[in-house]
Amino acid sequence: MAHTLAQKILQKHTDQQVGEAGQIVRCRVSMALANDITAPLAIKSFRAMGAGKVFDKDRVALVMDHFTPQKDIDSAIQVKNTREFAAQMGITHYYEGGEAGVEHALLPELGLVGPGDIVVGADSHTCTYGGLGAFATGLGSTDVAGAMALGETWFKVPPSIRVSYRGTMPAHVGAKDLVLQLIGHIGVDGALYKALEFDGPVVDAMSVEGRMTIANMAIEAGGKCGLFPSDDLTLAYTAARGRNDEKLSADQDAVYERSLSFDVSDLAPQIACPHLPENVRPVTEVQGVQIHQAVIGSCTNGRISDLREAAAVLRGRKVHKSVRCIVLPATPGIWKQALREGLIETFMDAGCIVGPATCGPCLGGHMGILADGERAIATTNRNFRGRMGSLESEVYLSNPSVAAASAVAGEIADPRGL
Amino acid sequence: MAHTLAQKILQKHTDQQVGEAGQIVRCRVSMALANDITAPLAIKSFRAMGAGKVFDKDRVALVMDHFTPQKDIDSAIQVKNTREFAAQMGITHYYEGGEAGVEHALLPELGLVGPGDIVVGADSHTCTYGGLGAFATGLGSTDVAGAMALGETWFKVPPSIRVSYRGTMPAHVGAKDLVLQLIGHIGVDGALYKALEFDGPVVDAMSVEGRMTIANMAIEAGGKCGLFPSDDLTLAYTAARGRNDEKLSADQDAVYERSLSFDVSDLAPQIACPHLPENVRPVTEVQGVQIHQAVIGSCTNGRISDLREAAAVLRGRKVHKSVRCIVLPATPGIWKQALREGLIETFMDAGCIVGPATCGPCLGGHMGILADGERAIATTNRNFRGRMGSLESEVYLSNPSVAAASAVAGEIADPRGL
Repeated sequence: MAHTLAQKILQKHTDQQVGEAGQIVRCRVSMALANDITAPLAIKSFRAMGAGKVFDKDRVALVMDHFTPQKDIDSAIQVKNTREFAAQMGITHYYEGGEAGVEHALLPELGLVGPGDIVVGADSHTCTYGGLGAFATGLGSTDVAGAMALGETWFKVPPSIRVSYRGTMPAHVGAKDLVLQLIGHIGVDGALYKALEFDGPVVDAMSVEGRMTIANMAIEAGGKCGLFPSDDLTLAYTAARGRNDEKLSADQDAVYERSLSFDVSDLAPQIACPHLPENVRPVTEVQGVQIHQAVIGSCTNGRISDLREAAAVLRGRKVHKSVRCIVLPATPGIWKQALREGLIETFMDAGCIVGPATCGPCLGGHMGILADGERAIATTNRNFRGRMGSLESEVYLSNPSVAAASAVAGEIADPRGL
Repeated sequence: MAHTLAQKILQKHTDQQVGEAGQIVRCRVSMALANDITAPLAIKSFRAMGAGKVFDKDRVALVMDHFTPQKDIDSAIQVKNTREFAAQMGITHYYEGGEAGVEHALLPELGLVGPGDIVVGADSHTCTYGGLGAFATGLGSTDVAGAMALGETWFKVPPSIRVSYRGTMPAHVGAKDLVLQLIGHIGVDGALYKALEFDGPVVDAMSVEGRMTIANMAIEAGGKCGLFPSDDLTLAYTAARGRNDEKLSADQDAVYERSLSFDVSDLAPQIACPHLPENVRPVTEVQGVQIHQAVIGSCTNGRISDLREAAAVLRGRKVHKSVRCIVLPATPGIWKQALREGLIETFMDAGCIVGPATCGPCLGGHMGILADGERAIATTNRNFRGRMGSLESEVYLSNPSVAAASAVAGEIADPRGL
């Protein structure tokens, strides 16, 4: 039977014959992940199920990234408990403090995830690794606890939606705009429990980082995962991180539930307006909306290519006096790379606040929370009501170039006009 | 009548004749200050007293530094309310976001305080400006509201304690060690409502930044203020920030309540042990105590000379795996200077977390809060029980060199042994 990419990866991890969508398969997992919010819950379940040790101390990753540097006593205790569990279990990949960064940027950077892997994480944006060709998905903490103990979990084989991109990417339009446009098109439940499989010439030419940005937001359309074929670019990326992976793509005659095809040539920068990622409009329809804060970072757009894009706009310009522009490079590695390239200097000269590698304000955690009536533009992934603070605040989602241009203008701005 | 430095400055700001300690004098204030915690309280009092406008829009400073970048909805609302008040009053010196930094580092840097000034701030470490020769003291928010409205306040003329330093400063011993040793000597109430007036050859040779470190901690001995004579170094510092100040020192025959004299030549780096700044011991008696966190920053030791000192220790070394070493340059200006000098790179290469200019963990605010049983060494100013987080955590105070050496060692360490 011809397999979609999703089916093909599941097949690699099970002794069952993977068939049509809806089948339940039991799969070995390559990596089980939790963070400082979810690990304590997973650990509690892990202990409640009487598990004595993790299935493989090299295949569990615990990344303290959401409320760190520890924002309050409660979060400090969460981290402490996780640290003690990691030590007790001998877990290799426990990251805290100066070694930690946003989990979904950190794991790829460290070579801990790659093509053909199955990654389950107690975090909805675990789907990011689909950019590298991994079947990666967010599970509840209890299910991740099970995977941590058993090294396997079950999946319902998802139907796949094929999304093909052709044309030429315009200036100031990037991966984020493609995925925002897609979510606007299919809606926040448009891919519910489905795999989004991306291909086409635009994808072939897209950087691995861009692919991760798109896969990251698969969940915002309800997707079980977002998947990219792995190619020379993928293998170069993972080989540079010490891995030896193989290319993987869908069979030619794989069956898709739905196929979408977009020409990106005329795409404008896209903005997801409050309070859903599907409320997407071209920047031209939203520009002029006053903002109080701009956030550049997160597992969606906190990688080096994103920082370069933002810095290109901010270089020689100043952040508007009434805007807090918060830049959070997603990992210490990205932070140092940005430093070497002079991007940190550009941000500081422009009047940005440069913070540590943390999820921070994306989830309303810390490092830039909104008061009633405040409005932010952010390169993050969710703009639900109250996501970044007060229930009476608003978040607009954009690419890094738009966020930077808006920070300078003090209102949502089109970077193409600069 | 011969005047102490405290009396002399008060005299400059009142039409009354300033006499002996205990006299009540009404003085004009040069600057009234509040931050994101205290400004909302001051504003509430300001409005309750029916004040329509501030006495001078150039002589009120509102600095959003404690919980910023906004750590939660409550702190975001505090900032928002302060921002709106500042706009309504036309206050010139309102600082938020990328323009803000730790207030007591920011105001000197911007040339807003200088010799002979009277500065009242709704923050206990307002006494920092005594390093520049300003009579500067922390008041309650209500009293600061009064000063904001009237441009004057009352003081009880403080008796002065003269503290003279002679000898040669040893390596890895700095201003922080002098003030810790002093507090250890006289106790946390040793200067209650008194002015600490510093002089001697060591003070003459000390940088203005070092003087501010010492003045900053006058309050930790209960002092009303800590005062340094202003000299060529002071005037060079303030002239570089656009001011035109005059030298000021105590009269030769001024009367002191008490005089202390110390030879610094044999002083070891000092550590204030939990849970009081007076529990001071030489590092040699404390070394080996395991730590989980090191904090380098704050209004006490977050200036460029402090960062240089820490970087000198961290250069080419790595922070211990079990330590979070959090570096918070005190202002955006200091941050940028550290960047230009390569100090930020040194910190990042060593595995530190470099954060924005915020008070952060010093007061248990955010950016590095301790869990039960965790222990920190910090260049901050207070180690009261629970100051940096859990009531079951501990804080040891030190100079930047000791904090850096301890971060590397994973335990309190003597930098002289490196």
